[in-house]
Amino acid sequence: MTNKKEITAGIIIIGNEVLSGRTKDINTSTLAKWLNSLGIQVKEVRIIADDEAIIIETVNNLRKRFNYIFTTGGIGPTHDDITAESVSKAFNLNYGFHKEAYSILEKYYKPGEFNDGRQKMAKMPTTANLILNPTSGAPGFYVDNVFCLPGVPSILQSMIGGLNNILIGGDPILNLTISLRTVESEIAKSITEIQNKNKDVEIGSYPFFKAGKLGVSIVLRSSNRNKLDQCNKEILNFVNSKSIKIIEDV
Amino acid sequence: MTNKKEITAGIIIIGNEVLSGRTKDINTSTLAKWLNSLGIQVKEVRIIADDEAIIIETVNNLRKRFNYIFTTGGIGPTHDDITAESVSKAFNLNYGFHKEAYSILEKYYKPGEFNDGRQKMAKMPTTANLILNPTSGAPGFYVDNVFCLPGVPSILQSMIGGLNNILIGGDPILNLTISLRTVESEIAKSITEIQNKNKDVEIGSYPFFKAGKLGVSIVLRSSNRNKLDQCNKEILNFVNSKSIKIIEDV
Repeated sequence: MTNKKEITAGIIIIGNEVLSGRTKDINTSTLAKWLNSLGIQVKEVRIIADDEAIIIETVNNLRKRFNYIFTTGGIGPTHDDITAESVSKAFNLNYGFHKEAYSILEKYYKPGEFNDGRQKMAKMPTTANLILNPTSGAPGFYVDNVFCLPGVPSILQSMIGGLNNILIGGDPILNLTISLRTVESEIAKSITEIQNKNKDVEIGSYPFFKAGKLGVSIVLRSSNRNKLDQCNKEILNFVNSKSIKIIEDV
Repeated sequence: MTNKKEITAGIIIIGNEVLSGRTKDINTSTLAKWLNSLGIQVKEVRIIADDEAIIIETVNNLRKRFNYIFTTGGIGPTHDDITAESVSKAFNLNYGFHKEAYSILEKYYKPGEFNDGRQKMAKMPTTANLILNPTSGAPGFYVDNVFCLPGVPSILQSMIGGLNNILIGGDPILNLTISLRTVESEIAKSITEIQNKNKDVEIGSYPFFKAGKLGVSIVLRSSNRNKLDQCNKEILNFVNSKSIKIIEDV
């Protein structure tokens, strides 16, 4: 099995409502699972304020470090939606009406309803590529390796599939979960030994509490199916040798 | 009303399980709401991998920029729990058994059950201050302005109250939400005008979709009660003038 180069991504969640705790971010999970399926690993997420200087600095820092950057939030019609203008400045690109986006939105709204706020959603780097929005019309966009998506989860979810043929991924990250009726400290030593023997598999250990009982989920992740299977076998051998119960439905 | 200095915080979520999308982070929301109530504003959140070099770099970067840093995750008994050792290295402090933590854990477990994994949870910067854990024994700790908490939300929640008298906050951040039966683009222009006249109030606009109907929540945030009330009055005047319906139970 050949190993392709690792393909990486960073996510920038833009929004005071997440920093204030009012809104729980679920876009990270959506994006990470989707990217994993394309063989792209999320390496870092930053949640930042609706602040132009901070957006510019964060975009310019992360876009050099990772293959792909995804931003969420700040591309709507209101005064606090400043992502499109900030990203234009980050790339030194002209911010203004994007012809194709304007045309899409003009057709989307009834005559007379395409007001200033709605027109604002057609403003972005004028040379950007669009990310179509099958839910609510207003497109996202991308410039170079920076993909700008909306913050509303259901709209974001409806748009990402359109990027499947644009992103170039690596080997898909395979994962496998074994849930055990035990506590972490009872298995820590053995799992450490197995991790040391299986360097190409990332082993995570996550305690849980469900239906009044404690358990631990062991999660194996690797892009190499054989190595994943070998590691899984070693864990099952250990689990059997200690008579630890495997839980099927976590 | 005097304005105290703004007191800021950064949050570092440590865990591959969040970056992979397997686990949705809810600790940010818990911490942010609690910190707001103490007059401390979260300015940035980073979600990073279980990687020593990255943890050290992130802790050392953020602790210089914000008054307080909170880390979550990576202080359990397993091989992937490396926060305590990494934070020790970030501060050039000795990593080893913390006497008080060891004593707490030794008493917490039954004789013979205080095994290697459990003992590992007593290892941290040896001079750290402890954050007591009323749920599951193993304490968190803090060094200087960096507070290290567990990743399991229910345990984290049970521990933060113990810090209320240790953190020094600013004026509490007051907030007020007005939910409207409208869409953002219909109110964008007027809200922008109100924001421009009320610089000391942060106005956020958040569309929602509930029970089959669209709406927008306008969220006002300020540490100044009078300015918050004034801004609220201007928004209600505008809402009444346009006969936009206010929704009470969002």
